[in-house]
Amino acid sequence: MNAEIIAVGSELLTPFRADTNSLYLTEQLNQLGVEVIFKSVVGDDLKQIAAATQHAIFRSEIVIFSGGLGPTEDDLTREAVAEALGVSLRRDAQVLAHIEQRFATRGWKMSPNNAKQADVIEGATVLPNANGTAAGQWISGRFDNRERTIILLPGPPHELKGLFECECRERLRAKLPPASIATRVLKIAMLGESAVDARVAPIYKRYGSVQTTILAGAGEIQLHFRSRAQTMEAAQARVDEAADAVEEELDDAVYSRNGESLEQIVGYWLQMRNATLAVAESCTGGLLAERISSVGGSSRYFVGGAVVYSNAMKTELAGVPASMIERHGAVSREVAAALAEGVRYRSEATLGLGITGVAGPTGGSAEKPVGLVFHALASDSGTEVIERNFPGDRQRIRWFASTLALDMVRRKLM
Amino acid sequence: MNAEIIAVGSELLTPFRADTNSLYLTEQLNQLGVEVIFKSVVGDDLKQIAAATQHAIFRSEIVIFSGGLGPTEDDLTREAVAEALGVSLRRDAQVLAHIEQRFATRGWKMSPNNAKQADVIEGATVLPNANGTAAGQWISGRFDNRERTIILLPGPPHELKGLFECECRERLRAKLPPASIATRVLKIAMLGESAVDARVAPIYKRYGSVQTTILAGAGEIQLHFRSRAQTMEAAQARVDEAADAVEEELDDAVYSRNGESLEQIVGYWLQMRNATLAVAESCTGGLLAERISSVGGSSRYFVGGAVVYSNAMKTELAGVPASMIERHGAVSREVAAALAEGVRYRSEATLGLGITGVAGPTGGSAEKPVGLVFHALASDSGTEVIERNFPGDRQRIRWFASTLALDMVRRKLM
Repeated sequence: MNAEIIAVGSELLTPFRADTNSLYLTEQLNQLGVEVIFKSVVGDDLKQIAAATQHAIFRSEIVIFSGGLGPTEDDLTREAVAEALGVSLRRDAQVLAHIEQRFATRGWKMSPNNAKQADVIEGATVLPNANGTAAGQWISGRFDNRERTIILLPGPPHELKGLFECECRERLRAKLPPASIATRVLKIAMLGESAVDARVAPIYKRYGSVQTTILAGAGEIQLHFRSRAQTMEAAQARVDEAADAVEEELDDAVYSRNGESLEQIVGYWLQMRNATLAVAESCTGGLLAERISSVGGSSRYFVGGAVVYSNAMKTELAGVPASMIERHGAVSREVAAALAEGVRYRSEATLGLGITGVAGPTGGSAEKPVGLVFHALASDSGTEVIERNFPGDRQRIRWFASTLALDMVRRKLM
Repeated sequence: MNAEIIAVGSELLTPFRADTNSLYLTEQLNQLGVEVIFKSVVGDDLKQIAAATQHAIFRSEIVIFSGGLGPTEDDLTREAVAEALGVSLRRDAQVLAHIEQRFATRGWKMSPNNAKQADVIEGATVLPNANGTAAGQWISGRFDNRERTIILLPGPPHELKGLFECECRERLRAKLPPASIATRVLKIAMLGESAVDARVAPIYKRYGSVQTTILAGAGEIQLHFRSRAQTMEAAQARVDEAADAVEEELDDAVYSRNGESLEQIVGYWLQMRNATLAVAESCTGGLLAERISSVGGSSRYFVGGAVVYSNAMKTELAGVPASMIERHGAVSREVAAALAEGVRYRSEATLGLGITGVAGPTGGSAEKPVGLVFHALASDSGTEVIERNFPGDRQRIRWFASTLALDMVRRKLM
């Protein structure tokens, strides 16, 4: 079955805002075995929304709207869809009471325009919104002699997600032929896209019933596998067969087999080994600590560290001798190792990570160009240092460096 | 004049990829005085692309395609647009020679399917692509008795941008009535969207010739002003009048008047005052240091700091007495102040920032719930502490806390 998604809102037609709800909705629909064949963004304009609705109903069996359900004059999705379907709106007493109550419990005064949020399209089922005043609406029926499902959801992502999960997923599943979709994601750190694809394309192409997508981000490759079958067991078996074959080829370059982030995987290994981690970072300026601590519960294994941007701080917080910095320069193998060892000693953590490099755009030289980074990992078995020259701008260089450092911890503990 | 943008490519209908070319194109079109009234994403499907083309020509005077100009069987934009316009494709000898030459100079063998990239829609002007083999195409004419301009551009962003800038901008300008567009952006930290809008809407609504857009992000509001006039002076005067009136109302809540980020503004003030900054952060886990050091050249005013995730690190790196932590708890006014003062003392920086709080999802209590954060700024005139209860998840709470801390520095130095 095919679906399309219409995002409503003039702000989504400015240079500043992209529609991201459709990515979430696509993921949810794909998991139900529904393909998205068209997406559009339309402004707060009754005629345009109505025309887009008519085109969509012609094309797709399921049409999902996000946005335009607010209380202002600009919120026109209800009116436009009713017009496109040739039906009327009625003010629903129960929805109105719910909105009034929501205002009352917060001690707010409801302005008269809020009442329009109780307007319901003839024949629609109201989808209650636990997170806001904009109720969703569900319309199933024949239009132009075609069986169609039309769903109106509010634009704020947390409201849209809540409504989809509680009110739409099971209703949609009940309308669809029984099919199970299995997925797997493999993630690979610090290899290039073409290098990965050259190694794995001959393998995944052998599995015709599994759809494989390769996605490249900064310092990370994701391989997405998806297959559909009558039963979940059959779908899962197909996906696993393809993913396992690819994983065997890539071996320990695969850091995650089920979609976890590198930060989560590092946390997982640290807990498995009953180990703790401290960091001392210069050019990454806090990014490495931020990434590690972005995982909830990371205080169980991450003790913290030092952002040693100035040379004085390298000495003060991580105990790097000033004479060493003078002799080898702040960006050097020696200082990276001293940062890792110094912060490990100070914090009494199991592992210490040190990073020093030239993130640019200024500060590079012929000998030490922008992109040169030293990464060090100190443990009771000694200190390992990796030197790299990263391409790209300041932001990419910092991201690559923090990714490589995280991957050093993973490989150490594996 | 109105435009719409059609992004072609099945990968843009997956959960993993969003169309971003349209944001760039919208910005460029807006600067020419053209409004974007519709955007769509369509897969690699001849019929669907042709149908979308017909709808677009009906709706909009300018239609821009991105993608679908590659050499594979899936690349169907040329064929579909020709079909929608009811004209034929011809293979262009000059374009073909250019493609062959591009392959030859790189020592590559051209595969036969590449020849289809030389197919040109009848009546189209070829737009040479300096960055790839996919040439753009420009069609101006009457279709269904309407004057229309249809532009085909390649999908890779750097190719699309190069082609738009070199081949499209001046051609479009020549078709448009002479107009100049001026813009201004005001940014406001740590005020709510409705609070800002209630104060400024009565003001900006007085300036009918200036289009004002209010955009809310986490902890930040942006007010975008845009106006169009015969001359740039007239357009700029209108925008400035509206922006200045709004700025007067918001006073020192406005941190940026020309689009700079809060991190850049903080760096600017630190350099103006010849001051340096150090940070000691617990719940933000490095995010504050990362944001400050994300600005190129920040080593001139940012010395670094400590990520004091564990209590032991609060004592070891920022000198917070263990007894103070025991008495008041790690999340307390006292510890925040001690962090700011401790890191300032250790680093000899002009200003010290301290943050401690509960970022969640676990670790909250009735007395100290998730979202409670203390922010402290130490200087030679003493230490200021701000306590806040932030809503949202771990990521939002950390972002809010780091934004508030940055804003404390700005207000201190202003």
